[in-house]
Amino acid sequence: MPSTFRAEVFPARTPAASQIFTTVLSHGPLTRADAARRAGLSAAAVTKAVRPLIEAGYLVEDADVETRPVLGRPANLVRVDGGRALFIGIKITGGEIFGVLTDLCCRVRVARDVPLTARAPKAVLASVAELVRELLTEADGFGVPVLGCGIAVAGEVDRAEGVVRYSPFLDWRDVPLAELAAMTTGLPVTVDNDVRALTVAEQWFGAGVGLSDFAVVTVGAGIGCGLVVHGRVVAGVHGVAGEIGHVVVDPAGPPCHCGRRGCLQAFAGDAEIVARVREVTGTSVTDSAEAVAVAHAGHPGAREVYARAGEAIGRGIATVANLLGPERVIISGEGLAAYDLFAEQIREAFTAGAFGSATRCELLTRPLPFEEWARGAAATAIRSFIRADQ
Amino acid sequence: MPSTFRAEVFPARTPAASQIFTTVLSHGPLTRADAARRAGLSAAAVTKAVRPLIEAGYLVEDADVETRPVLGRPANLVRVDGGRALFIGIKITGGEIFGVLTDLCCRVRVARDVPLTARAPKAVLASVAELVRELLTEADGFGVPVLGCGIAVAGEVDRAEGVVRYSPFLDWRDVPLAELAAMTTGLPVTVDNDVRALTVAEQWFGAGVGLSDFAVVTVGAGIGCGLVVHGRVVAGVHGVAGEIGHVVVDPAGPPCHCGRRGCLQAFAGDAEIVARVREVTGTSVTDSAEAVAVAHAGHPGAREVYARAGEAIGRGIATVANLLGPERVIISGEGLAAYDLFAEQIREAFTAGAFGSATRCELLTRPLPFEEWARGAAATAIRSFIRADQ
Ligand SMILES: [Zn+2]
Ligand SMILES: [Zn+2]
Repeated sequence: MPSTFRAEVFPARTPAASQIFTTVLSHGPLTRADAARRAGLSAAAVTKAVRPLIEAGYLVEDADVETRPVLGRPANLVRVDGGRALFIGIKITGGEIFGVLTDLCCRVRVARDVPLTARAPKAVLASVAELVRELLTEADGFGVPVLGCGIAVAGEVDRAEGVVRYSPFLDWRDVPLAELAAMTTGLPVTVDNDVRALTVAEQWFGAGVGLSDFAVVTVGAGIGCGLVVHGRVVAGVHGVAGEIGHVVVDPAGPPCHCGRRGCLQAFAGDAEIVARVREVTGTSVTDSAEAVAVAHAGHPGAREVYARAGEAIGRGIATVANLLGPERVIISGEGLAAYDLFAEQIREAFTAGAFGSATRCELLTRPLPFEEWARGAAATAIRSFIRADQ
Repeated sequence: MPSTFRAEVFPARTPAASQIFTTVLSHGPLTRADAARRAGLSAAAVTKAVRPLIEAGYLVEDADVETRPVLGRPANLVRVDGGRALFIGIKITGGEIFGVLTDLCCRVRVARDVPLTARAPKAVLASVAELVRELLTEADGFGVPVLGCGIAVAGEVDRAEGVVRYSPFLDWRDVPLAELAAMTTGLPVTVDNDVRALTVAEQWFGAGVGLSDFAVVTVGAGIGCGLVVHGRVVAGVHGVAGEIGHVVVDPAGPPCHCGRRGCLQAFAGDAEIVARVREVTGTSVTDSAEAVAVAHAGHPGAREVYARAGEAIGRGIATVANLLGPERVIISGEGLAAYDLFAEQIREAFTAGAFGSATRCELLTRPLPFEEWARGAAATAIRSFIRADQ
């Protein structure tokens, strides 16, 4: 077991405690009154929840010297003591594994990555273990414990069980990743779907702060969707949720690797776009950068491929808006590199497909590098530690 | 103001109080310990929440004589005193207005309906007022107050504002129905989308009891969808949610009255099916009953129309399952009269379209007459009265 790991538990395992903690984490520093208002709790409930968290050093309360009134005492502000503990977040992609070491405020302290050379669970676990070892070595310098590790993987993930049910890009089925990674790293491990992990980071620190209902749609190798409804990330009763990639947008569309026809993925996935650009242009483009370059050079066939991808994405977003009525949809993912090629079509198809007031849903693009996805994984580890069910 | 109306307010306007009340309403009679467990509250919180509700007579606590142990005191059971108050629920359809008088347990005591002769707000309000007057006269016999009225309308409804934003079947835009109906009836009025109202009834008393995540899909004049996520009915930030009817299932499909092509509505709405059956059979069928009869008589073209409707419905349900991962989808609506004509296609298209574990979502059909929709409207009035935000 690494030297920096000490078993430590969050002192107040009540919904109110984790709610206050995440409220202060997202919005802090806050006065107790502000924290109570934002969390929808009574002053008494806040006092009760805050006390053990201050005693354990997770929260601190300082006089607010900035806003010190001319007369009277300054207001006390509650904030999370970021330096109190560390967490690790891991995002597995097809080619690399990204890892970050964050503090308790989920601020990235160290970022590392290692190549992914093979996709069998054993090989991936070995790479994850290597990356975690490196980050733990870095953690030694901070003098505070690493309290947990979050791992984010594309596909169907049962977070409660810690099992990757099905991950097409790794070709995994029913891999008990949390248990295996806990054994090799010695840390408590949380496993979640990668887009849901990114959604937690957006909810706590990003473009979703303060919103009870929003969605994150990611465009890239896969097309993903994280949904926040009633202030909580939707996980699905059986582990499937946000599967926008295999929503059929046109039953006469191109075949999809999942066996259906006309899935959003079949129109807008990276590999699918590259293959289609190759086909229509007769060129030998092999990756997204080359396909984007051909389209930017003005090849009408290639531009049409991106236009159709944008149309399919906009239609998928309209479906989300019609069903859930979110306040905002955040569009991200490495596919944003081609955004100028389909931004207009996304917006047009969204407007055409959204029903009534659903058109008032705001579309926002946000480039988030893989490090940010790894940070989302660290956020899921913090969430597990504080037992927040959201 | 009718003689039975007295201003009365729920004594404990806290989330815990409304949560305990709805828990006892759905699952009661319950011991306090069971109520605490089901509501996820501490025993102390239950004690605090229950006291004013018992004092006001909304809850009663009885010794459970049935389970009296051989030794010791019998357990006390908490239940809602249904006879303590009355509520009215109204469901407006294209041809009739259905009304029910329910008790505080939302049990139907009296049911009435009046024809809808014109669709202008003034005419509809006059019919609603007439129906409410009849029900209030009936209420006199019970000797307890009518505490609120819920009105359910198809379309885009802003519940918080009490405004019908857009109701295609009534051709209404921005009608402040809650305010207008409160003036003509003298009752506190809640207005909600009709499928969401039905979903509240299913959540509290029907096939959704005990489920945190489920959906209701209604098939009939319109195709509707009510969603419960994290234990609460989804209303949408701007009043739109569950708009499954205008999700495009096939961009090459038939034109829809909303201006798009290939909406689920265009395949499976009652009027759309009737028109299509008329077209393919060359007969002059004018309503659903006749169209169903032609298909039952074996006309292959008519059967094909229903088959395609079923396929579109199954695809729409798969989209809901892929995005939200509900435990169950309840299929209802007057369109169930044709269920044998498309049940197989719904199931096949759902299975083909659902991704991974989303196929484990259970499909359930439940015929619910319009009286049950009106009961849902009464449930929304009870929800407003007890201030439950779910
Ligand atoms: Zn697919
Ligand atoms: Zn439509």
